[in-house]
Amino acid sequence: MSKTFEKLKPYLDKAMALQTARSLFEWDTQTLAPFGAADNTSKVNGILSDEYMKSLINDDVRQLLKKLQEEQEQAELSDLEKAIIKELAKSYEQLESIPPEEYKEYNELTSISSRKWAKAKKDNSYSDFAPYLQKIIDFKKKFASYRVKDGKTPYEVLLGDYEECFMIKDLDAFFDKFKAEIIPLVKEVYKKTDTIDKSYNSLNYDIEKQKEFCKYLSGYLGFDFNRGVIAESEHPFTLQLHNHDVRITGRYLENNLESSIFSAIHETGHALYEMNIDDSLTQTPVGTGASMGMHESQSRFFENLIGRSYDFWEPIYEKLVEAFPENLQNIPLEKFIKGINKVSPCLIRTEADELSYCIHIIIRYEIEKMIFNNEVTVDDLPKVWNQKYQDYLGIAPTNDSEGILQDIHWSFGEFGYFPSYAIGTAVASQIYEYMKEKMPVSEYLRQGNITPIREFLRDNIHKYGATKNTNEILKDLCGEEFKPDYYINYLKEKYSRLYEL
Amino acid sequence: MSKTFEKLKPYLDKAMALQTARSLFEWDTQTLAPFGAADNTSKVNGILSDEYMKSLINDDVRQLLKKLQEEQEQAELSDLEKAIIKELAKSYEQLESIPPEEYKEYNELTSISSRKWAKAKKDNSYSDFAPYLQKIIDFKKKFASYRVKDGKTPYEVLLGDYEECFMIKDLDAFFDKFKAEIIPLVKEVYKKTDTIDKSYNSLNYDIEKQKEFCKYLSGYLGFDFNRGVIAESEHPFTLQLHNHDVRITGRYLENNLESSIFSAIHETGHALYEMNIDDSLTQTPVGTGASMGMHESQSRFFENLIGRSYDFWEPIYEKLVEAFPENLQNIPLEKFIKGINKVSPCLIRTEADELSYCIHIIIRYEIEKMIFNNEVTVDDLPKVWNQKYQDYLGIAPTNDSEGILQDIHWSFGEFGYFPSYAIGTAVASQIYEYMKEKMPVSEYLRQGNITPIREFLRDNIHKYGATKNTNEILKDLCGEEFKPDYYINYLKEKYSRLYEL
Repeated sequence: MSKTFEKLKPYLDKAMALQTARSLFEWDTQTLAPFGAADNTSKVNGILSDEYMKSLINDDVRQLLKKLQEEQEQAELSDLEKAIIKELAKSYEQLESIPPEEYKEYNELTSISSRKWAKAKKDNSYSDFAPYLQKIIDFKKKFASYRVKDGKTPYEVLLGDYEECFMIKDLDAFFDKFKAEIIPLVKEVYKKTDTIDKSYNSLNYDIEKQKEFCKYLSGYLGFDFNRGVIAESEHPFTLQLHNHDVRITGRYLENNLESSIFSAIHETGHALYEMNIDDSLTQTPVGTGASMGMHESQSRFFENLIGRSYDFWEPIYEKLVEAFPENLQNIPLEKFIKGINKVSPCLIRTEADELSYCIHIIIRYEIEKMIFNNEVTVDDLPKVWNQKYQDYLGIAPTNDSEGILQDIHWSFGEFGYFPSYAIGTAVASQIYEYMKEKMPVSEYLRQGNITPIREFLRDNIHKYGATKNTNEILKDLCGEEFKPDYYINYLKEKYSRLYEL
Repeated sequence: MSKTFEKLKPYLDKAMALQTARSLFEWDTQTLAPFGAADNTSKVNGILSDEYMKSLINDDVRQLLKKLQEEQEQAELSDLEKAIIKELAKSYEQLESIPPEEYKEYNELTSISSRKWAKAKKDNSYSDFAPYLQKIIDFKKKFASYRVKDGKTPYEVLLGDYEECFMIKDLDAFFDKFKAEIIPLVKEVYKKTDTIDKSYNSLNYDIEKQKEFCKYLSGYLGFDFNRGVIAESEHPFTLQLHNHDVRITGRYLENNLESSIFSAIHETGHALYEMNIDDSLTQTPVGTGASMGMHESQSRFFENLIGRSYDFWEPIYEKLVEAFPENLQNIPLEKFIKGINKVSPCLIRTEADELSYCIHIIIRYEIEKMIFNNEVTVDDLPKVWNQKYQDYLGIAPTNDSEGILQDIHWSFGEFGYFPSYAIGTAVASQIYEYMKEKMPVSEYLRQGNITPIREFLRDNIHKYGATKNTNEILKDLCGEEFKPDYYINYLKEKYSRLYEL
């Protein structure tokens, strides 16, 4: 270890410990904490955030970082040390610009606002959440404005926090092409949506049995229960304390079997990424996924490309039928596969079919751009939201719980996050194309053998954590940077065939 | 607020936030965390403990504390500020003597050792746990030796951390009297144990239904689910993040109904104490119970004096029968009450009957004294343990899981804690005698009206948090300090009657 790096390490360790504590509070708040705890607990969180910031943003670390950046040029650092320095410099750029008092206040706010969002969604009352959303947006605009440089817009600053490889021009290019090619296809498919019957999916499915089957599915895909747990929350998510403690949540609806199954597969994809990160990166700033986009590529890979395929279900469908014989015994696998790929008009992003999913993201992206360009007020958001759904999908929410209030992200201040889902989904297709060239994926799936697939992802993506960025991973793996065409072509080919267009 | 106190406050707030984070990790480790997380998580805990210590033990706080102690003499501080200063001075005495490196190492050790204990207990293998126990004892001896003064022995230093009002001479007096009066009674009762039949208790009781009934019981006693949650763990416990987030755990055995019921009542007693602490004390060093002994008095009050009485069960027994008609429909309330008060030879403290319970504590107290007087080695502990059970109760464990390994406390380094259970149980009897003079307790119970009982405890005990100590509370409430006679007389009277001696 470089001597300068050795001096930096205690600061990093302290920051990581505080970060891990904050993660545990987040987990606890979303899964278990009593409702009345929120006010006092958010104060505790505010103090921990403040301490986290102080542990990184101080003269000692600033000087060590500067010295290390010089050493880096003289090649005195290991690759891992270099990666950590790069990540730390990024955090510095993000955090140093924000006055500590504002940062603390903001963290206290988001700790409360996520509870307010949950209640507003439950009560279907956007006006109860709007004042908090307004405050969050004001903070995010201010924070972004502190960091604007190199010709970036404030929204691009936020986008960069989740995915450094893509800016507005890249996203616009991707999304414009997507809209041009896929919206007409969606509209054609909508006309034929009734040709697939999946009424079986909305029969009564015992919640405990769903939990049991979802747990089985996670384990089947490789979720290691010695290093992870599954709980419940309003909105499914994955969270890691470190690569030996990775947690996912599920949500279970009595009259929607697919909802829990595909959430479980999706979150397991995230969890496998974190569990497979190399132990040398544990509790360092690079001991997590490369980016939100890359993370979503792994969850979407398992959810869509693997999880919606005939080959995947062939060896395990019988087990699902055994869990719910009253509903599924007369549904052959062929019919189930058509059902889980059925395209139907849907207002809820997390329940959306694979074909239209990206439209939901594009709507959020366009609205976020409007917010940060000051083209819309908080009060007008529901109207704009509903209009875009009408324009792109031909459907509109009848209440705000299924509209503007449906996602948790903004209540945490996560603006700029949504595009990651689209990038990830597209990256998944790109990786899948390449993987199929390298191994008999279909055959493995039909044998119930997920191991080689998981190990391929581990060895080419997961183990590196955040030591590489999305385009570096793609270039090393596929020989080219991000290209959305694989995704668009995959959708066109698959859904034209499914609906015999 | 005193200006000096105002300067102290950020240090206290930071310490409390770190303490709250550590509590959450403790909760998580005991209830949910995956087994494989322990090593990395214990490192995180070590760092947080270290930071907690640094936040209190530093020159700034030292000087502020000194100044505040002077101001206190000039009566410039509020009562609350004085109480906080007193508590802080106590923490100072405890922590300042320990070198930070040793404290950190010790915290990392106990974070691992509680997992090692759980595994050793499961595997019935004391030798797997013994090396960790040895290390913990070595640390505790060293830490206590740093703090020995005023003629106290090392063990008295540890006792004082849980209950400052009682030293070895007080405990010896209490326990010698108890042994002299109660051991002969236990032995007489043992001869007649078969006159009470409670075979119903070991029939098959559905775990989910037990959980549901226990949850009902907690709510019936006043547990506020808006400010608390219930989970499961190997050993039931109560933990608070603050007075608006109080958590209890249960353990459920298929063939032992009483076990879960009386654990639930016991932990609810602890929880009510924490929930009823005044909001002005929240997240301050006095925002918790007065002492472990006082805390146990509240749990034991509900568990034994209330929970084992005919009056308590009269209005709710039918609900229990409804939950388990197959086992209880032919058991009249009278028989159930005899059953839950039945005295039988028992090796497990947490399952022990009310009459012999304190003997279990005395055994642990005597062994702890031997450990800290260097009169026994770690290797010999199982032998000594088993011999004492033989001598006092006429029974001996056949394996270490039901002997030396049964309690979690030592794996956390909690030496000196056990006597609190006995003190608390005796204090409960003392309070109960006084309460019965002030209100018609039996009548309230028969009406299913717990509120006046709970409010009496809240107004005379709970709300004060740790601003008073055990003897101050007792003196203000009952007009006298601690007196174990109420407890001993209560046991003699109750069990002579029950067994017609």
